[in-house]
Amino acid sequence: MTWYNSTMFKKIVIFGVGLIGGSVALSLKKQAHIPQVVGVGRSGQSLQEALKLGLIDVAETDVAHAMQDADLVLIAAPVAQTPAILRSIRPHLNAATIITDAGSTKSDVMAYAKAELGDKFDQFVGGHPIAGAEKSGPAAAMADLYIGKNVILTPDADTQSTAIDKVTALWQQCGAVVSRMSPQEHDNVFAAVSHLPHLLAFALVEDLAKRDNAELLFKFAASGFRDFTRIAGSHPEMWRDIALANKTALLGELKLYQQALSEMTALLEKADADGLQALFEHASRARNDWAKTKIQ
Amino acid sequence: MTWYNSTMFKKIVIFGVGLIGGSVALSLKKQAHIPQVVGVGRSGQSLQEALKLGLIDVAETDVAHAMQDADLVLIAAPVAQTPAILRSIRPHLNAATIITDAGSTKSDVMAYAKAELGDKFDQFVGGHPIAGAEKSGPAAAMADLYIGKNVILTPDADTQSTAIDKVTALWQQCGAVVSRMSPQEHDNVFAAVSHLPHLLAFALVEDLAKRDNAELLFKFAASGFRDFTRIAGSHPEMWRDIALANKTALLGELKLYQQALSEMTALLEKADADGLQALFEHASRARNDWAKTKIQ
Repeated sequence: MTWYNSTMFKKIVIFGVGLIGGSVALSLKKQAHIPQVVGVGRSGQSLQEALKLGLIDVAETDVAHAMQDADLVLIAAPVAQTPAILRSIRPHLNAATIITDAGSTKSDVMAYAKAELGDKFDQFVGGHPIAGAEKSGPAAAMADLYIGKNVILTPDADTQSTAIDKVTALWQQCGAVVSRMSPQEHDNVFAAVSHLPHLLAFALVEDLAKRDNAELLFKFAASGFRDFTRIAGSHPEMWRDIALANKTALLGELKLYQQALSEMTALLEKADADGLQALFEHASRARNDWAKTKIQ
Repeated sequence: MTWYNSTMFKKIVIFGVGLIGGSVALSLKKQAHIPQVVGVGRSGQSLQEALKLGLIDVAETDVAHAMQDADLVLIAAPVAQTPAILRSIRPHLNAATIITDAGSTKSDVMAYAKAELGDKFDQFVGGHPIAGAEKSGPAAAMADLYIGKNVILTPDADTQSTAIDKVTALWQQCGAVVSRMSPQEHDNVFAAVSHLPHLLAFALVEDLAKRDNAELLFKFAASGFRDFTRIAGSHPEMWRDIALANKTALLGELKLYQQALSEMTALLEKADADGLQALFEHASRARNDWAKTKIQ
Protein backbone atom coordinates (compact mmCIF):
# COMPACT_ATOMS: atom_id res chain seq x y z
CA MET A 1 0.00 0.00 0.00
CA THR A 2 0.93 3.64 -0.27
CA TRP A 3 1.20 5.71 2.89
CA TYR A 4 -0.27 9.18 3.22
CA ASN A 5 0.20 11.91 5.78
CA SER A 6 -2.44 14.26 7.12
CA THR A 7 -2.12 16.58 4.14
CA MET A 8 -3.94 14.09 1.90
CA PHE A 9 -7.34 15.66 2.56
CA LYS A 10 -8.09 19.37 2.20
CA LYS A 11 -11.87 19.10 2.52
CA ILE A 12 -13.91 16.38 4.19
CA VAL A 13 -17.68 16.17 4.01
CA ILE A 14 -19.38 14.27 6.84
CA PHE A 15 -23.00 13.17 6.54
CA GLY A 16 -24.24 12.72 10.11
CA VAL A 17 -22.20 14.60 12.70
CA GLY A 18 -23.12 12.52 15.75
CA LEU A 19 -20.86 10.39 17.94
CA ILE A 20 -19.23 8.53 15.03
CA GLY A 21 -18.81 11.33 12.48
CA GLY A 22 -18.17 13.98 15.11
CA SER A 23 -15.42 11.94 16.73
CA VAL A 24 -13.64 11.57 13.38
CA ALA A 25 -13.85 15.36 12.95
CA LEU A 26 -12.44 15.93 16.45
CA SER A 27 -9.52 13.52 15.96
CA LEU A 28 -8.62 15.19 12.65
CA LYS A 29 -8.30 18.49 14.51
CA LYS A 30 -5.34 16.96 16.36
CA GLN A 31 -3.41 16.45 13.10
CA ALA A 32 -0.58 18.67 11.87
CA HIS A 33 -2.63 19.63 8.82
CA ILE A 34 -6.30 20.03 9.62
CA PRO A 35 -8.69 19.62 6.69
CA GLN A 36 -11.80 21.73 6.35
CA VAL A 37 -14.71 19.72 7.73
CA VAL A 38 -18.18 20.30 6.32
CA GLY A 39 -21.12 18.73 8.12
CA VAL A 40 -24.27 17.78 6.27
CA GLY A 41 -27.38 16.50 8.01
CA ARG A 42 -31.15 16.22 8.08
CA SER A 43 -31.50 17.94 11.39
CA GLY A 44 -30.52 21.61 11.30
CA GLN A 45 -30.41 21.37 15.10
CA SER A 46 -27.60 18.83 15.43
CA LEU A 47 -25.71 20.57 12.61
CA GLN A 48 -25.88 23.83 14.58
CA GLU A 49 -24.82 21.95 17.71
CA ALA A 50 -21.86 20.40 15.87
CA LEU A 51 -20.88 23.84 14.65
CA LYS A 52 -21.11 25.33 18.16
CA LEU A 53 -19.08 22.45 19.57
CA GLY A 54 -16.40 23.06 16.95
CA LEU A 55 -16.73 19.60 15.42
CA ILE A 56 -17.24 21.09 11.96
CA ASP A 57 -16.11 24.26 10.23
CA VAL A 58 -19.19 24.59 8.02
CA ALA A 59 -22.75 23.29 8.37
CA GLU A 60 -24.49 22.64 5.04
CA THR A 61 -27.93 21.47 3.98
CA ASP A 62 -27.14 22.10 0.29
CA VAL A 63 -25.39 18.94 -0.89
CA ALA A 64 -24.13 20.45 -4.19
CA HIS A 65 -22.41 23.26 -2.33
CA ALA A 66 -21.05 20.97 0.38
CA MET A 67 -19.51 18.63 -2.21
CA GLN A 68 -17.51 21.32 -4.09
CA ASP A 69 -13.83 20.18 -4.17
CA ALA A 70 -14.48 17.51 -1.50
CA ASP A 71 -11.59 15.01 -1.19
CA LEU A 72 -13.46 12.65 1.09
CA VAL A 73 -17.07 11.94 1.93
CA LEU A 74 -17.78 10.07 5.19
CA ILE A 75 -21.33 8.75 5.56
CA ALA A 76 -21.97 8.40 9.30
CA ALA A 77 -25.78 8.63 9.25
CA PRO A 78 -28.16 5.73 10.00
CA VAL A 79 -27.61 3.01 7.35
CA ALA A 80 -31.22 3.33 6.16
CA GLN A 81 -30.31 6.81 4.83
CA THR A 82 -27.25 5.58 2.90
CA PRO A 83 -28.93 4.98 -0.50
CA ALA A 84 -30.51 8.47 -0.51
CA ILE A 85 -27.22 10.08 0.52
CA LEU A 86 -25.28 8.22 -2.20
CA ARG A 87 -27.91 9.27 -4.75
CA SER A 88 -27.63 12.90 -3.64
CA ILE A 89 -23.81 13.06 -3.92
CA ARG A 90 -23.47 11.03 -7.15
CA PRO A 91 -23.80 14.06 -9.50
CA HIS A 92 -21.17 16.01 -7.52
CA LEU A 93 -18.39 13.41 -7.40
CA ASN A 94 -15.20 14.13 -9.29
CA ALA A 95 -12.65 11.50 -10.31
CA ALA A 96 -10.64 12.04 -7.12
CA THR A 97 -13.41 12.07 -4.52
CA ILE A 98 -13.24 9.15 -2.11
CA ILE A 99 -16.40 7.95 -0.41
CA THR A 100 -16.57 5.83 2.73
CA ASP A 101 -19.12 4.99 5.42
CA ALA A 102 -19.36 3.86 9.05
CA GLY A 103 -22.36 1.52 8.93
CA SER A 104 -22.67 -1.53 11.20
CA THR A 105 -23.62 -3.81 8.30
CA LYS A 106 -21.64 -4.03 5.08
CA SER A 107 -23.21 -6.37 2.50
CA ASP A 108 -26.22 -4.06 2.22
CA VAL A 109 -24.10 -0.90 2.10
CA MET A 110 -21.81 -2.31 -0.62
CA ALA A 111 -24.92 -3.23 -2.65
CA TYR A 112 -26.34 0.29 -2.19
CA ALA A 113 -23.03 1.79 -3.36
CA LYS A 114 -22.87 -0.43 -6.43
CA ALA A 115 -26.47 0.47 -7.33
CA GLU A 116 -26.21 4.22 -6.67
CA LEU A 117 -22.65 5.15 -7.66
CA GLY A 118 -22.43 3.41 -11.04
CA ASP A 119 -19.00 4.01 -12.60
CA LYS A 120 -17.87 5.78 -9.40
CA PHE A 121 -18.39 2.60 -7.33
CA ASP A 122 -14.61 1.98 -7.42
CA GLN A 123 -14.16 5.20 -5.37
CA PHE A 124 -16.27 3.81 -2.50
CA VAL A 125 -14.69 2.00 0.47
CA GLY A 126 -17.15 0.43 2.91
CA GLY A 127 -16.06 0.78 6.54
CA HIS A 128 -17.15 -0.05 10.08
CA PRO A 129 -15.47 1.51 13.13
CA ILE A 130 -15.98 -0.77 16.14
CA ALA A 131 -16.53 1.90 18.75
CA GLY A 132 -19.09 1.91 21.55
CA ALA A 133 -22.17 4.02 21.02
CA GLU A 134 -23.96 4.14 24.39
CA LYS A 135 -24.35 7.88 23.98
CA SER A 136 -25.13 9.52 20.65
CA GLY A 137 -25.34 12.98 19.08
CA PRO A 138 -22.70 15.67 18.49
CA ALA A 139 -22.20 16.29 22.23
CA ALA A 140 -21.04 12.67 22.66
CA ALA A 141 -18.17 13.06 20.15
CA MET A 142 -14.66 12.40 21.54
CA ALA A 143 -11.26 13.04 19.92
CA ASP A 144 -9.92 9.77 21.37
CA LEU A 145 -12.93 7.54 20.60
CA TYR A 146 -11.03 5.47 18.02
CA ILE A 147 -7.68 5.09 19.74
CA GLY A 148 -6.85 1.38 19.81
CA LYS A 149 -10.25 0.47 18.36
CA ASN A 150 -10.77 -1.79 15.33
CA VAL A 151 -11.99 -0.39 12.04
CA ILE A 152 -12.94 -2.88 9.32
CA LEU A 153 -12.86 -1.94 5.64
CA THR A 154 -14.77 -4.05 3.13
CA PRO A 155 -13.45 -3.03 -0.32
CA ASP A 156 -14.66 -4.71 -3.49
CA ALA A 157 -12.32 -6.29 -6.06
CA ASP A 158 -12.97 -3.19 -8.21
CA THR A 159 -12.20 -0.66 -5.49
CA GLN A 160 -9.30 1.71 -6.31
CA SER A 161 -6.28 0.84 -4.16
CA THR A 162 -5.63 4.57 -3.66
CA ALA A 163 -9.08 4.92 -2.13
CA ILE A 164 -8.47 1.95 0.19
CA ASP A 165 -5.06 3.30 1.24
CA LYS A 166 -6.35 6.81 1.94
CA VAL A 167 -9.34 5.62 3.99
CA THR A 168 -6.94 3.31 5.88
CA ALA A 169 -4.67 6.30 6.57
CA LEU A 170 -7.65 8.39 7.73
CA TRP A 171 -8.62 5.85 10.38
CA GLN A 172 -5.01 5.28 11.40
CA GLN A 173 -4.72 9.03 11.98
CA CYS A 174 -7.68 8.64 14.35
CA GLY A 175 -5.64 6.02 16.24
CA ALA A 176 -7.59 2.99 14.98
CA VAL A 177 -6.34 -0.47 13.98
CA VAL A 178 -7.55 -1.13 10.42
CA SER A 179 -8.44 -4.59 9.04
CA ARG A 180 -9.98 -5.75 5.76
CA MET A 181 -12.71 -8.35 5.22
CA SER A 182 -15.25 -9.19 2.57
CA PRO A 183 -18.67 -7.61 3.31
CA GLN A 184 -20.13 -11.08 3.94
CA GLU A 185 -17.34 -12.13 6.31
CA HIS A 186 -17.82 -8.85 8.20
CA ASP A 187 -21.55 -9.45 8.52
CA ASN A 188 -21.02 -13.05 9.66
CA VAL A 189 -18.51 -12.03 12.34
CA PHE A 190 -20.72 -9.24 13.71
CA ALA A 191 -23.85 -11.37 13.63
CA ALA A 192 -22.03 -13.58 16.15
CA VAL A 193 -20.20 -11.11 18.41
CA SER A 194 -22.55 -8.12 18.33
CA HIS A 195 -25.94 -8.58 16.67
CA LEU A 196 -26.76 -11.86 18.44
CA PRO A 197 -25.88 -10.58 21.95
CA HIS A 198 -28.04 -7.51 21.35
CA LEU A 199 -31.04 -9.65 20.40
CA LEU A 200 -30.42 -11.97 23.38
CA ALA A 201 -30.39 -9.00 25.75
CA PHE A 202 -33.56 -7.50 24.24
CA ALA A 203 -35.22 -10.93 24.54
CA LEU A 204 -34.32 -11.36 28.22
CA VAL A 205 -35.58 -7.92 29.26
CA GLU A 206 -38.79 -8.41 27.24
CA ASP A 207 -39.25 -11.91 28.71
CA LEU A 208 -39.22 -10.42 32.24
CA ALA A 209 -40.84 -7.03 31.52
CA LYS A 210 -44.06 -8.58 30.19
CA ARG A 211 -44.67 -10.75 33.27
CA ASP A 212 -47.22 -9.94 35.97
CA ASN A 213 -44.47 -9.90 38.63
CA ALA A 214 -42.07 -7.78 36.53
CA GLU A 215 -41.88 -5.13 39.25
CA LEU A 216 -40.75 -7.67 41.85
CA LEU A 217 -38.24 -9.21 39.45
CA PHE A 218 -36.71 -5.85 38.51
CA LYS A 219 -36.57 -4.83 42.19
CA PHE A 220 -34.11 -7.63 42.90
CA ALA A 221 -32.16 -7.53 39.63
CA ALA A 222 -28.60 -6.41 40.44
CA SER A 223 -25.20 -5.73 38.84
CA GLY A 224 -25.02 -8.95 36.81
CA PHE A 225 -28.37 -8.14 35.22
CA ARG A 226 -27.31 -4.52 34.74
CA ASP A 227 -24.25 -5.43 32.66
CA PHE A 228 -25.89 -8.31 30.80
CA THR A 229 -28.76 -6.06 29.69
CA ARG A 230 -26.88 -2.80 29.08
CA ILE A 231 -27.06 -3.35 25.31
CA ALA A 232 -30.83 -3.88 25.60
CA GLY A 233 -30.95 -0.12 26.23
CA SER A 234 -29.66 0.48 22.69
CA HIS A 235 -31.50 2.40 19.98
CA PRO A 236 -34.52 0.30 18.87
CA GLU A 237 -34.75 1.73 15.34
CA MET A 238 -31.03 1.23 14.69
CA TRP A 239 -31.18 -2.38 15.89
CA ARG A 240 -34.31 -3.10 13.88
CA ASP A 241 -32.38 -1.96 10.77
CA ILE A 242 -29.26 -3.96 11.68
CA ALA A 243 -31.28 -7.12 12.37
CA LEU A 244 -33.13 -6.84 9.06
CA ALA A 245 -29.99 -5.90 7.08
CA ASN A 246 -28.12 -8.93 8.46
CA LYS A 247 -31.15 -11.20 8.65
CA THR A 248 -29.67 -14.39 7.15
CA ALA A 249 -26.48 -14.47 9.23
CA LEU A 250 -28.40 -13.48 12.36
CA LEU A 251 -31.01 -16.22 11.87
CA GLY A 252 -28.13 -18.69 11.58
CA GLU A 253 -26.64 -17.40 14.84
CA LEU A 254 -29.99 -17.56 16.65
CA LYS A 255 -30.34 -21.19 15.55
CA LEU A 256 -26.84 -22.11 16.77
CA TYR A 257 -27.46 -20.33 20.07
CA GLN A 258 -30.77 -22.10 20.66
CA GLN A 259 -28.91 -25.39 20.06
CA ALA A 260 -26.21 -24.38 22.57
CA LEU A 261 -28.92 -23.50 25.12
CA SER A 262 -30.69 -26.80 24.53
CA GLU A 263 -27.44 -28.71 25.14
CA MET A 264 -26.88 -26.81 28.39
CA THR A 265 -30.50 -27.43 29.39
CA ALA A 266 -30.04 -31.17 28.77
CA LEU A 267 -27.02 -31.22 31.13
CA LEU A 268 -29.11 -29.49 33.81
CA GLU A 269 -32.10 -31.79 33.27
CA LYS A 270 -29.98 -34.87 33.99
CA ALA A 271 -28.16 -32.99 36.79
CA ASP A 272 -24.82 -33.64 35.07
CA ALA A 273 -22.59 -31.77 37.56
CA ASP A 274 -19.32 -32.61 35.77
CA GLY A 275 -20.75 -31.65 32.38
CA LEU A 276 -22.03 -28.30 33.68
CA GLN A 277 -18.80 -27.51 35.48
CA ALA A 278 -16.71 -28.38 32.40
CA LEU A 279 -18.88 -26.10 30.25
CA PHE A 280 -18.81 -23.22 32.77
CA GLU A 281 -15.03 -23.62 33.25
CA HIS A 282 -14.34 -23.57 29.52
CA ALA A 283 -16.57 -20.54 28.97
CA SER A 284 -15.24 -18.72 32.02
CA ARG A 285 -11.60 -19.28 30.97
CA ALA A 286 -12.33 -18.19 27.39
CA ARG A 287 -14.10 -15.03 28.58
CA ASN A 288 -11.42 -14.04 31.08
CA ASP A 289 -8.58 -14.75 28.62
CA TRP A 290 -10.41 -12.60 26.06
CA ALA A 291 -10.83 -9.72 28.53
CA LYS A 292 -7.05 -9.66 29.14
CA THR A 293 -6.44 -9.01 25.43
CA LYS A 294 -8.71 -5.97 25.26
CA ILE A 295 -8.23 -2.25 25.77
CA GLN A 296 -11.44 -1.48 27.66
CA MET B 1 -40.67 -6.35 65.22
CA THR B 2 -38.26 -5.49 68.00
CA TRP B 3 -35.39 -3.14 67.21
CA TYR B 4 -31.86 -3.79 68.42
CA ASN B 5 -28.77 -1.61 68.53
CA SER B 6 -25.22 -2.68 67.85
CA THR B 7 -24.79 -4.00 71.38
CA MET B 8 -26.98 -7.00 70.57
CA PHE B 9 -24.01 -9.15 69.57
CA LYS B 10 -20.89 -9.63 71.69
CA LYS B 11 -19.35 -12.43 69.66
CA ILE B 12 -19.96 -13.27 66.01
CA VAL B 13 -18.57 -16.38 64.31
CA ILE B 14 -18.16 -16.18 60.54
CA PHE B 15 -17.61 -19.33 58.48
CA GLY B 16 -15.89 -18.18 55.28
CA VAL B 17 -14.16 -14.81 55.57
CA GLY B 18 -14.11 -13.88 51.89
CA LEU B 19 -15.83 -10.96 50.15
CA ILE B 20 -19.26 -11.61 51.70
CA GLY B 21 -18.30 -12.58 55.26
CA GLY B 22 -15.33 -10.24 55.38
CA SER B 23 -17.44 -7.26 54.29
CA VAL B 24 -19.93 -7.92 57.10
CA ALA B 25 -17.01 -8.00 59.56
CA LEU B 26 -15.65 -4.70 58.18
CA SER B 27 -19.03 -2.93 58.37
CA LEU B 28 -19.50 -4.06 61.98
CA LYS B 29 -16.20 -2.38 62.84
CA LYS B 30 -17.89 0.95 62.01
CA GLN B 31 -20.52 0.43 64.74
CA ALA B 32 -20.51 2.12 68.15
CA HIS B 33 -20.14 -1.27 69.84
CA ILE B 34 -17.92 -3.62 67.91
CA PRO B 35 -18.50 -7.34 68.57
CA GLN B 36 -15.64 -9.80 68.70
CA VAL B 37 -15.43 -11.44 65.27
CA VAL B 38 -14.09 -14.98 65.03
CA GLY B 39 -13.30 -16.34 61.58
CA VAL B 40 -13.52 -20.07 60.86
CA GLY B 41 -12.46 -21.56 57.56
CA ARG B 42 -11.08 -24.54 55.66
CA SER B 43 -8.10 -22.65 54.34
CA GLY B 44 -5.63 -21.56 57.03
CA GLN B 45 -4.24 -19.19 54.42
CA SER B 46 -7.31 -17.01 53.92
CA LEU B 47 -7.95 -17.07 57.67
CA GLN B 48 -4.44 -15.69 58.22
CA GLU B 49 -5.03 -13.13 55.47
CA ALA B 50 -8.33 -12.06 57.07
CA LEU B 51 -6.53 -11.71 60.39
CA LYS B 52 -3.73 -9.61 58.85
CA LEU B 53 -6.28 -7.42 57.06
CA GLY B 54 -8.08 -6.84 60.37
CA LEU B 55 -11.34 -8.37 59.15
CA ILE B 56 -11.45 -10.73 62.13
CA ASP B 57 -10.13 -10.60 65.69
CA VAL B 58 -9.50 -14.33 66.00
CA ALA B 59 -8.87 -17.06 63.42
CA GLU B 60 -10.08 -20.50 64.49
CA THR B 61 -10.00 -23.98 62.97
CA ASP B 62 -11.42 -25.52 66.17
CA VAL B 63 -15.19 -25.15 65.83
CA ALA B 64 -15.93 -26.04 69.49
CA HIS B 65 -13.63 -23.28 70.70
CA ALA B 66 -14.87 -20.78 68.12
CA MET B 67 -18.49 -21.36 69.13
CA GLN B 68 -18.04 -20.67 72.87
CA ASP B 69 -20.54 -17.93 73.86
CA ALA B 70 -21.25 -17.07 70.22
CA ASP B 71 -24.34 -14.84 69.80
CA LEU B 72 -24.43 -15.15 66.03
CA VAL B 73 -23.11 -17.55 63.43
CA LEU B 74 -22.89 -16.32 59.83
CA ILE B 75 -22.26 -19.01 57.23
CA ALA B 76 -20.66 -17.28 54.24
CA ALA B 77 -18.88 -20.29 52.73
CA PRO B 78 -19.86 -22.00 49.42
CA VAL B 79 -23.40 -23.42 49.83
CA ALA B 80 -22.13 -26.97 49.21
CA GLN B 81 -20.31 -26.72 52.58
CA THR B 82 -23.42 -25.61 54.50
CA PRO B 83 -24.66 -29.05 55.65
CA ALA B 84 -21.22 -29.97 57.06
CA ILE B 85 -20.87 -26.58 58.79
CA LEU B 86 -24.35 -26.87 60.35
CA ARG B 87 -23.49 -30.40 61.53
CA SER B 88 -20.25 -29.17 63.08
CA ILE B 89 -21.86 -26.32 65.04
CA ARG B 90 -25.01 -28.19 66.14
CA PRO B 91 -23.47 -29.60 69.38
CA HIS B 92 -22.18 -26.15 70.38
CA LEU B 93 -25.38 -24.11 69.99
CA ASN B 94 -27.00 -22.66 73.08
CA ALA B 95 -30.61 -21.51 73.34
CA ALA B 96 -29.67 -17.93 72.41
CA THR B 97 -27.32 -18.55 69.47
CA ILE B 98 -28.70 -17.24 66.18
CA ILE B 99 -27.57 -18.81 62.92
CA THR B 100 -27.86 -17.24 59.47
CA ASP B 101 -26.27 -17.69 56.03
CA ALA B 102 -25.50 -15.79 52.84
CA GLY B 103 -26.13 -18.45 50.20
CA SER B 104 -27.46 -17.61 46.72
CA THR B 105 -30.13 -20.34 46.88
CA LYS B 106 -32.54 -20.73 49.77
CA SER B 107 -34.85 -23.76 49.40
CA ASP B 108 -31.85 -26.10 49.63
CA VAL B 109 -30.29 -24.19 52.54
CA MET B 110 -33.54 -24.18 54.54
CA ALA B 111 -33.84 -27.94 53.97
CA TYR B 112 -30.23 -28.45 55.13
CA ALA B 113 -30.93 -26.39 58.26
CA LYS B 114 -34.10 -28.35 59.06
CA ALA B 115 -32.24 -31.64 58.62
CA GLU B 116 -29.07 -30.70 60.51
CA LEU B 117 -30.27 -28.41 63.32
CA GLY B 118 -33.20 -30.44 64.64
CA ASP B 119 -34.85 -28.61 67.58
CA LYS B 120 -32.54 -25.62 66.99
CA PHE B 121 -33.96 -25.04 63.48
CA ASP B 122 -36.10 -22.20 64.83
CA GLN B 123 -32.85 -20.30 65.59
CA PHE B 124 -31.83 -20.36 61.90
CA VAL B 125 -32.66 -17.48 59.53
CA GLY B 126 -31.82 -18.09 55.88
CA GLY B 127 -30.45 -15.00 54.14
CA HIS B 128 -29.12 -13.79 50.78
CA PRO B 129 -27.27 -10.47 50.43
CA ILE B 130 -27.57 -9.26 46.81
CA ALA B 131 -24.08 -7.85 46.45
CA GLY B 132 -21.75 -8.14 43.48
CA ALA B 133 -18.99 -10.70 43.71
CA GLU B 134 -16.70 -10.07 40.75
CA LYS B 135 -13.73 -10.29 43.06
CA SER B 136 -13.53 -12.78 45.92
CA GLY B 137 -11.38 -13.57 48.96
CA PRO B 138 -10.61 -11.58 52.14
CA ALA B 139 -8.72 -8.86 50.22
CA ALA B 140 -11.90 -8.03 48.27
CA ALA B 141 -13.90 -7.24 51.45
CA MET B 142 -15.33 -3.69 51.70
CA ALA B 143 -16.97 -1.94 54.67
CA ASP B 144 -19.52 -0.33 52.33
CA LEU B 145 -20.34 -3.37 50.18
CA TYR B 146 -23.90 -3.63 51.51
CA ILE B 147 -24.89 0.04 51.61
CA GLY B 148 -28.16 0.38 49.70
CA LYS B 149 -28.07 -3.28 48.63
CA ASN B 150 -30.95 -5.72 49.06
CA VAL B 151 -30.75 -8.55 51.56
CA ILE B 152 -33.48 -11.19 51.47
CA LEU B 153 -34.36 -13.26 54.52
CA THR B 154 -36.30 -16.50 54.10
CA PRO B 155 -37.53 -17.44 57.58
CA ASP B 156 -39.72 -20.48 58.18
CA ALA B 157 -43.10 -20.34 60.00
CA ASP B 158 -41.28 -21.88 63.00
CA THR B 159 -38.41 -19.39 63.03
CA GLN B 160 -38.09 -17.36 66.28
CA SER B 161 -39.15 -13.76 65.66
CA THR B 162 -36.25 -12.61 67.84
CA ALA B 163 -33.84 -14.37 65.49
CA ILE B 164 -35.45 -12.75 62.43
CA ASP B 165 -35.39 -9.29 64.07
CA LYS B 166 -31.73 -9.56 65.12
CA VAL B 167 -30.54 -10.78 61.69
CA THR B 168 -32.59 -7.96 60.13
CA ALA B 169 -30.88 -5.46 62.46
CA LEU B 170 -27.45 -6.93 61.62
CA TRP B 171 -27.91 -6.31 57.90
CA GLN B 172 -29.47 -2.90 58.47
CA GLN B 173 -26.36 -1.96 60.46
CA CYS B 174 -24.39 -2.90 57.33
CA GLY B 175 -26.54 -0.39 55.40
CA ALA B 176 -28.65 -2.99 53.57
CA VAL B 177 -32.37 -2.92 52.72
CA VAL B 178 -33.92 -6.10 54.17
CA SER B 179 -36.88 -7.95 52.61
CA ARG B 180 -38.57 -11.27 53.42
CA MET B 181 -39.72 -13.99 51.05
CA SER B 182 -40.44 -17.69 51.19
CA PRO B 183 -37.41 -19.78 50.12
CA GLN B 184 -39.27 -20.87 46.99
CA GLU B 185 -40.28 -17.33 46.00
CA HIS B 186 -36.65 -16.27 46.48
CA ASP B 187 -35.40 -19.07 44.26
CA ASN B 188 -38.00 -18.31 41.57
CA VAL B 189 -37.08 -14.61 41.50
CA PHE B 190 -33.34 -15.27 41.27
CA ALA B 191 -33.74 -18.00 38.68
CA ALA B 192 -35.17 -15.23 36.46
CA VAL B 193 -33.01 -12.19 37.24
CA SER B 194 -29.67 -13.83 38.07
CA HIS B 195 -29.31 -17.55 37.40
CA LEU B 196 -30.81 -17.43 33.89
CA PRO B 197 -28.62 -14.51 32.70
CA HIS B 198 -25.53 -16.30 34.00
CA LEU B 199 -26.37 -19.45 32.04
CA LEU B 200 -27.18 -17.37 28.92
CA ALA B 201 -23.80 -15.65 29.14
CA PHE B 202 -21.93 -18.94 29.67
CA ALA B 203 -23.81 -20.39 26.67
CA LEU B 204 -22.92 -17.50 24.36
CA VAL B 205 -19.21 -17.55 25.17
CA GLU B 206 -19.12 -21.36 24.82
CA ASP B 207 -21.05 -21.17 21.54
CA LEU B 208 -18.35 -18.87 20.10
CA ALA B 209 -15.29 -20.29 21.89
CA LYS B 210 -15.72 -23.79 20.48
CA ARG B 211 -15.82 -22.62 16.83
CA ASP B 212 -12.91 -22.95 14.40
CA ASN B 213 -12.88 -19.17 13.87
CA ALA B 214 -13.16 -18.33 17.59
CA GLU B 215 -9.94 -16.30 17.46
CA LEU B 216 -11.28 -14.08 14.67
CA LEU B 217 -14.63 -13.66 16.45
CA PHE B 218 -13.02 -12.70 19.77
CA LYS B 219 -10.68 -10.28 18.00
CA PHE B 220 -13.62 -8.16 16.91
CA ALA B 221 -15.80 -8.56 19.99
CA ALA B 222 -16.08 -5.14 21.69
CA SER B 223 -17.68 -3.36 24.64
CA GLY B 224 -21.20 -4.72 24.15
CA PHE B 225 -19.84 -8.27 24.22
CA ARG B 226 -17.63 -7.39 27.20
CA ASP B 227 -20.56 -6.29 29.38
CA PHE B 228 -22.96 -8.98 28.18
CA THR B 229 -20.44 -11.72 29.00
CA ARG B 230 -18.92 -10.30 32.20
CA ILE B 231 -20.92 -12.77 34.31
CA ALA B 232 -19.62 -15.63 32.14
CA GLY B 233 -16.30 -14.99 33.92
CA SER B 234 -17.93 -16.05 37.21
CA HIS B 235 -16.78 -18.96 39.36
CA PRO B 236 -17.66 -22.21 37.50
CA GLU B 237 -17.96 -24.40 40.63
CA MET B 238 -20.22 -21.89 42.39
CA TRP B 239 -22.48 -21.63 39.36
CA ARG B 240 -22.62 -25.37 38.89
CA ASP B 241 -23.89 -25.61 42.49
CA ILE B 242 -26.40 -22.77 42.06
CA ALA B 243 -27.75 -24.25 38.80
CA LEU B 244 -28.20 -27.69 40.38
CA ALA B 245 -29.63 -26.30 43.63
CA ASN B 246 -32.22 -24.26 41.72
CA LYS B 247 -32.67 -26.76 38.90
CA THR B 248 -36.48 -26.79 38.65
CA ALA B 249 -36.99 -23.01 38.60
CA LEU B 250 -34.03 -22.56 36.26
CA LEU B 251 -35.31 -25.16 33.80
CA GLY B 252 -38.62 -23.29 33.76
CA GLU B 253 -36.81 -20.01 33.00
CA LEU B 254 -34.74 -21.61 30.24
CA LYS B 255 -37.94 -22.88 28.64
CA LEU B 256 -39.62 -19.45 28.80
CA TYR B 257 -36.51 -17.79 27.37
CA GLN B 258 -36.27 -20.24 24.48
CA GLN B 259 -39.92 -19.41 23.71
CA ALA B 260 -39.16 -15.66 23.82
CA LEU B 261 -36.20 -16.21 21.47
CA SER B 262 -38.34 -18.28 19.09
CA GLU B 263 -40.95 -15.50 18.96
CA MET B 264 -38.25 -12.92 18.18
CA THR B 265 -36.77 -15.25 15.55
CA ALA B 266 -40.20 -15.60 13.92
CA LEU B 267 -40.47 -11.79 13.62
CA LEU B 268 -37.05 -11.68 11.96
CA GLU B 269 -37.85 -14.59 9.63
CA LYS B 270 -40.86 -12.77 8.22
CA ALA B 271 -38.91 -9.47 8.28
CA ASP B 272 -41.60 -7.89 10.49
CA ALA B 273 -39.97 -4.47 10.91
CA ASP B 274 -42.80 -3.04 13.04
CA GLY B 275 -42.93 -6.11 15.27
CA LEU B 276 -39.16 -6.05 15.85
CA GLN B 277 -39.13 -2.32 16.53
CA ALA B 278 -42.05 -2.59 18.98
CA LEU B 279 -40.27 -5.40 20.84
CA PHE B 280 -36.92 -3.57 20.93
CA GLU B 281 -38.63 -0.32 22.02
CA HIS B 282 -40.52 -2.01 24.84
CA ALA B 283 -37.41 -3.83 26.07
CA SER B 284 -35.19 -0.76 25.70
CA ARG B 285 -37.63 1.42 27.66
CA ALA B 286 -38.04 -1.20 30.39
CA ARG B 287 -34.27 -1.59 30.74
CA ASN B 288 -33.53 2.13 30.84
CA ASP B 289 -36.37 2.82 33.28
CA TRP B 290 -35.01 0.03 35.50
CA ALA B 291 -31.48 1.46 35.41
CA LYS B 292 -32.76 4.82 36.68
CA THR B 293 -34.15 3.14 39.82
CA LYS B 294 -30.85 1.52 40.80
CA ILE B 295 -27.89 2.56 42.93
CA GLN B 296 -25.10 1.28 40.71
